[in-house]
This record gives sequence, structure tokens and C-alpha cells, in this order.
Amino acid sequence: MIRRVSNWGRWGADDELGTVNLITPAVRREAAGLVRRGEVISLAIAFDRHGPQPPGDRRPNALHTMLATGTDVKTGVQPLSVEGWGYADDVVTLATHGATHWDCLAHQFYDFRLYNNRDCTLVRADGAECCGVTAFASRVVTRGVLLDVPRALGLDWLPIEHRITVAELERTLELERVEPRSGDVLLIRTGNMTRARRDGGWDDYVYTNEPGIGLEALPWLHEHGIAGVATDTWAFEAIPSGASIWLPVHAVAIVHMGLLLGEIFELDALAASCSADGVYEFLLAALPLPISRAVGGPVHPVAVK
Amino acid sequence: MIRRVSNWGRWGADDELGTVNLITPAVRREAAGLVRRGEVISLAIAFDRHGPQPPGDRRPNALHTMLATGTDVKTGVQPLSVEGWGYADDVVTLATHGATHWDCLAHQFYDFRLYNNRDCTLVRADGAECCGVTAFASRVVTRGVLLDVPRALGLDWLPIEHRITVAELERTLELERVEPRSGDVLLIRTGNMTRARRDGGWDDYVYTNEPGIGLEALPWLHEHGIAGVATDTWAFEAIPSGASIWLPVHAVAIVHMGLLLGEIFELDALAASCSADGVYEFLLAALPLPISRAVGGPVHPVAVK
Amino acid sequence: MIRRVSNWGRWGADDELGTVNLITPAVRREAAGLVRRGEVISLAIAFDRHGPQPPGDRRPNALHTMLATGTDVKTGVQPLSVEGWGYADDVVTLATHGATHWDCLAHQFYDFRLYNNRDCTLVRADGAECCGVTAFASRVVTRGVLLDVPRALGLDWLPIEHRITVAELERTLELERVEPRSGDVLLIRTGNMTRARRDGGWDDYVYTNEPGIGLEALPWLHEHGIAGVATDTWAFEAIPSGASIWLPVHAVAIVHMGLLLGEIFELDALAASCSADGVYEFLLAALPLPISRAVGGPVHPVAVK
Amino acid sequence: MIRRVSNWGRWGADDELGTVNLITPAVRREAAGLVRRGEVISLAIAFDRHGPQPPGDRRPNALHTMLATGTDVKTGVQPLSVEGWGYADDVVTLATHGATHWDCLAHQFYDFRLYNNRDCTLVRADGAECCGVTAFASRVVTRGVLLDVPRALGLDWLPIEHRITVAELERTLELERVEPRSGDVLLIRTGNMTRARRDGGWDDYVYTNEPGIGLEALPWLHEHGIAGVATDTWAFEAIPSGASIWLPVHAVAIVHMGLLLGEIFELDALAASCSADGVYEFLLAALPLPISRAVGGPVHPVAVK
Repeated sequence: MIRRVSNWGRWGADDELGTVNLITPAVRREAAGLVRRGEVISLAIAFDRHGPQPPGDRRPNALHTMLATGTDVKTGVQPLSVEGWGYADDVVTLATHGATHWDCLAHQFYDFRLYNNRDCTLVRADGAECCGVTAFASRVVTRGVLLDVPRALGLDWLPIEHRITVAELERTLELERVEPRSGDVLLIRTGNMTRARRDGGWDDYVYTNEPGIGLEALPWLHEHGIAGVATDTWAFEAIPSGASIWLPVHAVAIVHMGLLLGEIFELDALAASCSADGVYEFLLAALPLPISRAVGGPVHPVAVK
Repeated sequence: MIRRVSNWGRWGADDELGTVNLITPAVRREAAGLVRRGEVISLAIAFDRHGPQPPGDRRPNALHTMLATGTDVKTGVQPLSVEGWGYADDVVTLATHGATHWDCLAHQFYDFRLYNNRDCTLVRADGAECCGVTAFASRVVTRGVLLDVPRALGLDWLPIEHRITVAELERTLELERVEPRSGDVLLIRTGNMTRARRDGGWDDYVYTNEPGIGLEALPWLHEHGIAGVATDTWAFEAIPSGASIWLPVHAVAIVHMGLLLGEIFELDALAASCSADGVYEFLLAALPLPISRAVGGPVHPVAVK
Repeated sequence: MIRRVSNWGRWGADDELGTVNLITPAVRREAAGLVRRGEVISLAIAFDRHGPQPPGDRRPNALHTMLATGTDVKTGVQPLSVEGWGYADDVVTLATHGATHWDCLAHQFYDFRLYNNRDCTLVRADGAECCGVTAFASRVVTRGVLLDVPRALGLDWLPIEHRITVAELERTLELERVEPRSGDVLLIRTGNMTRARRDGGWDDYVYTNEPGIGLEALPWLHEHGIAGVATDTWAFEAIPSGASIWLPVHAVAIVHMGLLLGEIFELDALAASCSADGVYEFLLAALPLPISRAVGGPVHPVAVK
Repeated sequence: MIRRVSNWGRWGADDELGTVNLITPAVRREAAGLVRRGEVISLAIAFDRHGPQPPGDRRPNALHTMLATGTDVKTGVQPLSVEGWGYADDVVTLATHGATHWDCLAHQFYDFRLYNNRDCTLVRADGAECCGVTAFASRVVTRGVLLDVPRALGLDWLPIEHRITVAELERTLELERVEPRSGDVLLIRTGNMTRARRDGGWDDYVYTNEPGIGLEALPWLHEHGIAGVATDTWAFEAIPSGASIWLPVHAVAIVHMGLLLGEIFELDALAASCSADGVYEFLLAALPLPISRAVGGPVHPVAVK
């Protein structure tokens, strides 16, 4: 399997981009041509303290605190404030993987290697020496394709533990009348966020079993030249996997394919839009903050139709 | 002046978008048509601890720390790690206005009001009740236009304290063969970042005098229906201003026009590209993280040409 | 009531210490004389992400992340490391009131005033202009007295909503053979932490009803010259209070008496020790970190017997 | 040298306390007897953003932000606030070694080992499995002795790079009429903080050469049963050291002796007090926050005389 999908060396020994290399200028130019109405649809959840990470987790939900406020201005105590002139200011602490984000290639190791046969010790307490978010942060403008799998299967959401087959991916695309192309970023909707949030909370979303693709989908992604895949789940892939390692799709996809994976994408508004107009392809812009040496890429992705 | 440019009430009493309303679907559709080569150019500086904020400032430069590393995997101590499988993870603390960012309409007050005649006490210690970054975070996909003012004036960078006139803006656009249009975001390059960083540091960049536009440019922006303006400076506007309040352009533009202002944009690579191909208009995507109740929008803006 | 217990002006118009003034050198000298065995008992809970604050609360539990690790040293990638020499390093983010702490006098307002008839706008987005933790941070070395109220009442813990009466305080002290003295810090054990943590968690501890003293105990504290009172509860006082304001004891004790209040003190080990040797008085050292402009004082208090 | 001073195994294979074991109840009892006047002297610097860490350092100076303010109360917008009742609240982010602190035994490695012959991989991205601050956080109540070395040598401060000899330590103690005893914590004043701060800043304090003891003082500390040593310098020891490794005293003292080291202690007020009354011994209380898994112990130490 690994040999079949590996991209090690494909773009040179120094490559830090992996499948993002497939997002060529030509791909972007064509993607821009998909903008017909000029509508923008957000694919991010709110970044705040009510986010998905469970209590006590090492990944904190976003913590937002203030440095300057309007109430200070109103009461006349803000330095420099005259004539009711003043400003507000703030700080935020984020886990890079705590809300909508890209996994960087430096995020995952297998057999002590990271992408392109590098040693995992390149990622240490002072961050990632290579393959961090800055490597690809300005690249992800391309064609996006929504695969609304539960819709194709006539469901509100996929059952927990449902492993999406290649046949299901193909059937979904066929119903949506889209052919996958090299450089595409696929947004695979499982409905798992819809299910978890139906009462407003995030119960049974993080650190639980979840629907998603398995290892057997990777050759299909490889053959079609897919540049990235994002989902509305916490951990991207079908859990449990049955493999001896935790998250085997991460291991093969990130480490060997150099595939860009996205997690905790909010796909419901996009699904509604695509269902309404019957168009499942669009311009995707998903540019994470270029945080030096970071292994996760907090991002506000949007679809432009 | 304020009466002349005010947009209070223009888009309804509840409006939180201000001039971002001018970015219509039609504007976006046309902007997408500007993508000719499919090249993406980053407009963000690095988000890290070596950033522009000076020592001791209340706005900290980005602090990045690790939650999980490859060295833990290599030494066999990462929980759940088997067969060299493992992951890296991290956390970041950011001042929302500390690196490349949009000012939200909740960021600025004048005469104790914020945009659309709201009381400044809507922005308090628990953040912004309205006009925060989530209001507009998915909207900023539009035509961008670079105004390379020093180039138009035959300079490497504008002198510190240079106040850019309307005539200079118009002359720059004329040389660049672009006409401003409603819904545009203008990127006004002053060269001040080029100057400050010529030795690699950030000396004389923050809390110093700087070139930029003054109040007299606001009617011109208003008349042309400009949706947003970003610069390569720390505080957007010409300092000193000569006004009785600190940062008068902020006061009138943000509070009364509801104008989207961007700061600390890196415009040098874009300037080089535009100079090379002679094209100063492009698709701009600048989607800040949707941090609940935040008054600043950290963002990775890109130009797509 | 307020007139009866107020200390406004008692130690001068500029006083920021309140009842901490009662901890005189003579009081400390006598307290030091209580050290008989030389045993130290910790009165702090663990400062970590499993702490008492509930999910989504604005006060985050402590977030601890690493800057340098032994695994980096082991794998030879720590800068400057040779011959297996190296170091570890870390960062912590704390809510000042999130674990064991003192409330500073700047923490509480009533009728828009803080202690000593100051305007509440002295505490703003850049912290406390006065009455913050640095005012008293080096002062709290004095006699401590444990009041093990549930023990005196023959209970494991007080019922939730139990309001401790003055008679109960006096009966407890009588059983413990201690007379309250000027400059004492009283540690009032309710057993509420014991109850909440009997299954290891923190359920029903924060933002819930809880046992504690009410307003009627304040004159008794005032008359005895008590310098501070700490409890094993989250909010110090009996909830519900029956008053029109939330936390009336805070309002009168902190704002008008300038009384030092401590919360989330771990008193079970101390209770066991005092029960074993029959001695309920000791040297108390409770020196919070001197964080400039902070309104809460994270602290590791100890009893020395 | 290492063999001569090693304490590995001395207190059992599981010991995490090192020389803190020498602070026995008897030692504390005697130390309490040193309290004569009841005066408390703070030994901490301010914890704030103006602290000693240089710009861009991985250890941030303390960042303090607000969660609730008096200005919110004044303007009537604080939730739950009625009748001017309200509160203030805040958060702080600290480098554990960024201001006054103890080095934990988990802080230092040599030959890939930490104290008591443990593998350095016990300290990883999720913190210290052992020998962290919680191991000893409630123990440090003992006799403190100030060694005012520059005073003994007739200087305002020691020259940068001055290596304090054993003879100088002994001469200082002799002048001060103190005999070192088992369980003591020595506070070695170099005057380096006085020098660095003479203009108010922290220039030439961190990451520079500095006075302090060298390796040859360790046997002397060992023989006298010293439980801990703290200084008014950034890195405790004389720099440069002449050794092949960076900070050799750290390596031998922490890793092999298990010696408690303190840094960035403010000793000037204490020096003035001791000089005035001629008494250089006192009760020392230095209880760091018990932050789970932390390798540094931020602390507010005090001397009680």
C-alpha cells in the first residue's frame, strides 16, 4: 500500500509541499473560472472557548482576553483617549488543531519518519524545522469539490464507525456530476458534525469513533491527483480502523503521500448551497496563518461559487 | 468631513459590515475573472516571536509552544505511539493586532461611539457584542488593487511622515492603468516596511511616525466606493496627523465610514510581481480567523493573479 | 451593617492593605513561636488543566506547555547540547482565580466603589491601578487558625447551602481551644471540596450553591480583628445568600472591610493533622506571586506546625 | 568531582527531592526561632511584561490580560452586576523561569540523565513525569542565610565574570558571623541585579556573562549540607565557566547533587536590612506554585526576621 501511494522523492528530496504541488497555476486559473454568482460560503466553526475540545484536553479551546475596551474609553480612563476617541484590543490563545485547521506535513510520523523520508526529530520543542505551516500556507487556492456522502446515501449523517468506500465516493461524485481532477481539494462531508451539534454542543465529536475514509481510499486519491482532503470530523478518518496503529490513514496519507488533510471543517452551509444549485465544485481559498514552526494551520476556509 | 463620508444608517440600523457591504457577488465574480496565471502571492508577515511588537508592549508577538513532538516519538515516550507512529501538536498565543490583520469595526471609537452610532460600551472585558471579526470574516474576497506609491514617485520608500495626497493616489493609479471601482480593496504600499526591515529587524516601525494617507483622502475613498484599504505600515495612517486626537483617520474611517482597514500587510513581493507584469489588479482573498468577540482579525491575505 | 464593619479611612486615605494591616510584626513573631514540630502542610490544589473551572468558563484551568524537553536532548537536537547536557523549560497560562488564590481588594466593587472609597474605574483593561496583588503579596505571614466546622458539627461535610452561624464559629473554636486574635487568618473548612472531590472530579463545586458564612458573620470577624479568611470553597460565602446582589459577603467584606479572602484552599490534610495533634493554630505563610496590576493572587499557602 | 558530591541513591532510588531532604522538621523548628522582629522582606521581582527576558526570547515575560473590569461595572455592562456590585478578573501567561523561580530537578540533564540516575526522556512535551515542581513545592521553609559577597569585598557589585571562590564565601560568612548548617538555603548576592538595573532596565542581565560560583564551590556546599542556593543572577553560576559544556554548575549541582537552585531573586532589600541589623540569618519561606508537571517553579520567596 505504502509503495503504491508514496510520493517520497517525487518532487525532489527537499520538497516540503507534498500533494500541494499538484495545485498548479493552471489548476487555480480554472478554479477561478468556477466563480459564477460571487457567493462566499464559510467553512469554519467559531474559534472560541465553547469549541470542540473536551474539558481537560491538552488542546485548549480558544481563549480570548482583552487588552483595551470601550468601557475604558467611556469612563475616561484609557490612556491617550480624548474626545471619546479610543480603541479596543485583544489577545487569543489557540490550539492549532483545536478548531478548523489543516494538518501540516510536520504533524505526523510513521516508522519515525515524516514526509519525504525525514527524521521525526526535526519536530521538537521549538517547533518544526521543516514541513510546518509556512511551507504551504499561501498555496491553497484551487478547485474544491464537496462530496456530500450522506446525501448520496439518502441519510442525514453517516452512522458512527461507517467506513466510506471508494464506491461510495464515486457514486457521490457521479450524482453530483463532478469528475475528480488533479489539484482538487475534496471536502468529504460525513454529517458527523451535524449529528454531534444537533443539540448545540460537541458531545461525541472528539476522541470518539467517527465515520470517514479508510486506507483503501488512498490509492484512489493518489490516482486522481488529489491535492488535499478535508472533512467535517475531528480526526479525518474512520475510527476504529482495525489497524495496529492509531489513525493509519494519517500515517500513510500525511507521511507517505504528503497529502494535505483538513479537519473540523463546517460543511453544512456549503452542502445546503450545493444541494440548492446542484453545483458541487467551486473556488476554494484556505490560507492558514503563517505561524513560524507550527505543525497545525488554523484557517478560515471559504468556498466561492 | 464626517458628515460627508458617514455611512451610518446607509445599510440599516443593524448593519455590522460597513463598507464590506460594497463587496457584492457581482464584484467578486468580476474579481475572479482577474486570475490569469493562477499565481498566488502571500501578503502576510511571519507570525512569530520575532515580530514587530516592541519589548514590553501590551501586544505580545506570537508565542508558539509545543504539546507533542517528534523527539518524544523517537524516544518512545509519546502515549499511544507504536511502530514509530506519532504526531506533533502545538499552541499559539497571538495579539490580534500584532502581525498582519484587519481592524474590526469594534476596534475603534470616536465621541464614545462605534460604527453605526453604537455605544462604545458594547466592547467590554468579555469582548465585542457586535462588529467583531466574525461579522465580516468570510466576506473579503474581491478585487484587490496595489497602489505602489513610492514607485510612482520614483522612490524606494516614502519619507517618514510623508502624507499621501489624493493627487498621489490618482497619479499612482494612472501609472498603473487601474480605475478604482466600488467594492475594491486597495493595498497602499508606502515602502515603510521595506525601510524598517532593510537590516532584518523591526526598528522604527511600531509606535513611530510613518507615512500614510490623511483625513483628506477619505472623501475620495468614499466616492469611489472603496470597501477596504490595507497598508504595509503599523498604524495605517500618516503620523503625525496634526489633529487633536491620536489617529484621526481611524476615527473617521472606521467609526463613521465603517471602512475596513488592514495593517502590517507585506506588500513587497506583490509589488515586484506587479512591476514585472504591469498588472496591478488581482483577486484578493483575505479571510481572518473567525474568533468570537474579537476586535482584530489575524489573517493570511493573498493576491491571486 | 456596612457602617458597623467599614474600615474606610482607618489606615489612611491611601491604604491599599485593608485588614492585612492587622498582621503586625508582633503578630508574626508570636506566630513563628507556634512552630513546634517543623512540619509543613500544603494548602494548595494542583494547578493544572484538570482543575475546577468548568468547560467553557472564561477562567481557564492552568495550561502548561513546553519550550524545551529531555527528549530533544536525548535525540541530540537541542541547541547548545553536548555530552548529554541540556535542559527543560516551560510556560503556563493561569486564571488568577482559577485555583488556590487570594482575592485582591481590586477584585470587588460595590456601589461602584472599591476598598477605601475608590472609584471602580481604577480597575480597567490594563489591570488594577491600585489594590492589586503586589500591594500585599509579601505580607501574609501570620498566625493561621483552622476552623473545622463540619468536624465540630459531627459531619463529614456541611450540607450544600448551609450558612455557618457565628455560634457555629464560636463553638468550633471552643472545641479546638483557640481564641481568635487580631491579625489571625482563619481557614474555615466546610468540607465542600471533600464532598465535590469524593469521586475525583470537581462536579458541583464551581458555580453552584455552597456552604459558607453570611453577612452576619462579618461584625464578628471585624470585632476580633481578623486579617483574612480562606475557605475550601469556590466563592467563599454561603450561596444562595438571599440578598439582592450576587455574593454580598464579597461586597461588604472586600469593599468595606478591606478583608483578605482566600478561595479554593485545600484544607483536608491540615484538618487531618490538626485532628491528630489537637492543635488548630500554626504559622501560615501564603505569599502570592507579585503579578503587576493583577486582581487575583495565585498562591501556594502552607501551614507550619 | 561528580563522585565527590553525588547524592544519587542517598535518599533512595525513588527520591525526587534531592537536597531538599536536608530541610528536616528540626531545621524548620530552629529556623522559626530566628523570627525576632516579625518583619517580612520580599525576595521577588515584579512579574510583568517589563521583566528581564530579552525581546524575541522563547521565555516570554509575564503577559497579563483582563477578563472583567471595573469600567465594565461602571458602565453597567457587566453581566450580573446590579447596584454597582461587580468584580474584576484576569489571566496571566508566565515562563516558569522568566522571573524569580526555583529550578526543579527535572530542569537539567547531563550525560542524558536527570537527578538520581533517571533517563532524560522522562521530561517530554507533556511535561515532567517526575522531579517537577510539585515534588518539593511545599517544603522550602527553612533557615535562609544571605551571603552579601560584594559587601564583604568592599564593592557595590561583583565584576562581571567574577568567579566567587570558597574562600570568599567563607570570608563573607565570617564577617556576617554565621556558620552554615545542614538544611540551610543560601542566598548569594552578587550585586549583578543591582548593576543591571541601576538605570531601571534589564540590559546586560540575561544571556550575558555574570558573576557566580563555579564547580569548585560544590564540594563545600555538599559538605555543609546546604539544601538550596539562590542568587540575584539570571543563570546562577559564573559565566564563562571554561568548561566544555554550557552551565557546568547546573549539570553537577542539579543532576548529581539534586541541589535546589534559585535564580532572579531580588536580594537588595534583604541586603539593606541585614546590613542595618547585622543579622544575616532568617526564616525563609519560598513555596512555588504547584504546577503539575512543570520544570520551573515561579515563587514569591520571603525572608522573615
